[in-house]
Amino acid sequence: MSTAKTVIVLGADGYIGWPMAMHLSRLGHQVVAVDNLARRSWDEEGGTESLVPIATMEQRVHRWHEVSGRTITYEQLDLCDHDALDDCLARWRPEAVVHFAEQRSAPFSMIDREHAVRTQANNIIGNLNLLFAIQAHVPQCHLIKLGSMGEYGAPNIDIEEGYITIEHNGRSDRLPYPKVPHSFYHLSKVADSQNIHFASRIWGLRATDLNQGVVYGCETEDTVLHEELLTRFDYDSIWGTALNRFCVQASTGNPVTVYGKGGQTRGYLDIRDTMACITLTLDNPPEAGECRVFNQFTEQFSLNQLAELVTAARRHHGQDTTVVHLPNPRVEAEEHYYNAKHTRLLDLGLQPHYLGETLVDSLIDLVARHADRVDPILLERPSVSWRTGGNEVWHQYADARRQGALSQATAQLVGSATAVRGAGEAANGTGAPRPAATAARPGP
Amino acid sequence: MSTAKTVIVLGADGYIGWPMAMHLSRLGHQVVAVDNLARRSWDEEGGTESLVPIATMEQRVHRWHEVSGRTITYEQLDLCDHDALDDCLARWRPEAVVHFAEQRSAPFSMIDREHAVRTQANNIIGNLNLLFAIQAHVPQCHLIKLGSMGEYGAPNIDIEEGYITIEHNGRSDRLPYPKVPHSFYHLSKVADSQNIHFASRIWGLRATDLNQGVVYGCETEDTVLHEELLTRFDYDSIWGTALNRFCVQASTGNPVTVYGKGGQTRGYLDIRDTMACITLTLDNPPEAGECRVFNQFTEQFSLNQLAELVTAARRHHGQDTTVVHLPNPRVEAEEHYYNAKHTRLLDLGLQPHYLGETLVDSLIDLVARHADRVDPILLERPSVSWRTGGNEVWHQYADARRQGALSQATAQLVGSATAVRGAGEAANGTGAPRPAATAARPGP
Repeated sequence: MSTAKTVIVLGADGYIGWPMAMHLSRLGHQVVAVDNLARRSWDEEGGTESLVPIATMEQRVHRWHEVSGRTITYEQLDLCDHDALDDCLARWRPEAVVHFAEQRSAPFSMIDREHAVRTQANNIIGNLNLLFAIQAHVPQCHLIKLGSMGEYGAPNIDIEEGYITIEHNGRSDRLPYPKVPHSFYHLSKVADSQNIHFASRIWGLRATDLNQGVVYGCETEDTVLHEELLTRFDYDSIWGTALNRFCVQASTGNPVTVYGKGGQTRGYLDIRDTMACITLTLDNPPEAGECRVFNQFTEQFSLNQLAELVTAARRHHGQDTTVVHLPNPRVEAEEHYYNAKHTRLLDLGLQPHYLGETLVDSLIDLVARHADRVDPILLERPSVSWRTGGNEVWHQYADARRQGALSQATAQLVGSATAVRGAGEAANGTGAPRPAATAARPGP
Repeated sequence: MSTAKTVIVLGADGYIGWPMAMHLSRLGHQVVAVDNLARRSWDEEGGTESLVPIATMEQRVHRWHEVSGRTITYEQLDLCDHDALDDCLARWRPEAVVHFAEQRSAPFSMIDREHAVRTQANNIIGNLNLLFAIQAHVPQCHLIKLGSMGEYGAPNIDIEEGYITIEHNGRSDRLPYPKVPHSFYHLSKVADSQNIHFASRIWGLRATDLNQGVVYGCETEDTVLHEELLTRFDYDSIWGTALNRFCVQASTGNPVTVYGKGGQTRGYLDIRDTMACITLTLDNPPEAGECRVFNQFTEQFSLNQLAELVTAARRHHGQDTTVVHLPNPRVEAEEHYYNAKHTRLLDLGLQPHYLGETLVDSLIDLVARHADRVDPILLERPSVSWRTGGNEVWHQYADARRQGALSQATAQLVGSATAVRGAGEAANGTGAPRPAATAARPGP
């Protein structure tokens, strides 16, 4: 590998952030893991929860040290607190900052005005603070920023990697690829991309904007070492992906629910490939002043293709799974052209893990181990409409929390973390079984 | 004219907002003038001031009623206060909202982190609040939003009006025109445009995004009726335009200062044409779900061409004016292709007033009447660099304010408003002469 670097991972408590922190630490980098723990509070707010119990950040870095002998330094801070962020960069003087620290759910951003504003303020201002902090303290630092393939939308022409050469009225220019994003969340990432591009132009910052597809899988070389090192698995309609929902539905004997016609096509990649993509990006920094964009995914699937993959995997185990189509809560094309380029990371040496039945089987096995934690309401019903915001499911959970009816569920969340901590002490313990989530939740 | 409508003008205390409110009122519309008066506080913060004394909003609407017999209702509120905004739209149920209520200075947004964040938070969140308020209360309302030609930057291909049809790899799509904006301020407008486009797609809102060029002139049919109805004239390097600076320099016998090589080319229009453009837009609303974009300017000029126009106008009065080139505080192309389309407003019937020597003469006459208010430091020196932020001139004024040294200047601002009020009572009074601004300001 390349020279060891000081790398700050922002958003290190997240689904990808935590495995990434371990991966970079394993490779010998000095890793500073930063998070404000917002994601956990948003779970609490909306009554959602990772199917796989996750340890606290303190437990994680402690366990990582025990297991690997390596040190990840955890700092709790919010990117919107610019003094704290400035101080962090000034102290560590990182060679690279990997920025995952954003509200990353499209449905969350579509709940209502407050959630749209919270998403855009958190993401855009946090990212802007980061740009200024880098300029002030470490202008040579490589900013590796997580964007989204959802920034592009689903145009009727090939999607290029960040820029497109346009021939128009006999002249030509290479310009940022035009974007038609899917949600207020994706719009926040578009604004980030624009701000980063500008900062590279005027200040000479070096940045890589990674437009990532939908990530699947929970297991990396590191997360499997100990259950306190696991990362989250979301299946609900706010935080989960369609593939995760399909796996949970198939595993629990429910029909697989496709929203709309199912022709919605996106890019996908294995979480292990995310680890590799970020590492390749880190090892191959751009020039000063360059804002480089990679499309970070390995395969394209439509929702119908994913549903077919899951039902085929079950069929090979003798299980019949039906597929049903529900009204689409999103406003999006359900049958469309989609061809997105993704050669730049392959050119750097990425060797993809493709999504096959083996991976689907492993996801279904993972779900089966935690089936008692599945909330059937969150599994079955979308809770946010693009046209009308949070629906009765959202309000049922969020209002219940406001009225204190989720206090028992909250207690369980805390209790479950405690159970995991206890389980961690005994190598393969499964922790105290969590009471069925719905027991503590308001009835339908 | 078309049917009278209830129109809310957001940002009605601004350079364009105030004349616009009067213009729409003159046409018989019911006009609600909304502002949070932020622009006045930003002047105070940075030690800048309109060369033309302006009356308070209360004075303005009072005088307008006296002069015209028509009523403009003034409400002080901040778009970032979503409850107040919601309440305003719910009470008035406007047929159209004209949205000028944004921080609109590129240099202001480049002073430092705090000003960049303030600009983007104010503009993006305010606009987002407005979109949600329209959706909630008046989904049929026509949003007329002021964008900027500076959102596009200076691409090497023709600039189209908001969208461009791209042929790529044998396929074609009409997509938002790719943007390479000039500043954190222009980036905020790009984010607004994206949010508005999205809201029209998912909620069916009807919107017109007006990418306006640089506006010049102070005199409309209405501002000339009484000095309490005047609008502002900015010449300093934060709020002023290059043309205004050139006119002040020429009028006061100073060299005209061009930043950089002077090939920087932009679109320009007369403030009377802004009045006409907004009115034409209002009278011709888009369909529900349509986010229409017009490029709102009438002519293109480079800085060198503007300097030549001003010096030529002086030459015809026997005055010799020299042109000097200063180092450019901005990071921008100084020699570039620029060809921006602007036919859609002409198609609606716009009859442009072109920038000629007569208009330049009238601007220079205006300046001459207020020459004692010119601050030579603010006139001479840029105060913000794109690379390093607010410079010693900025700090000299802003720090002085923080340390109370501008208290006398502040007192003068208040005093000058009082003088204008007094002057207003006597029809053609010029008000108490304002002591030379520099007297109260810190030395160089």
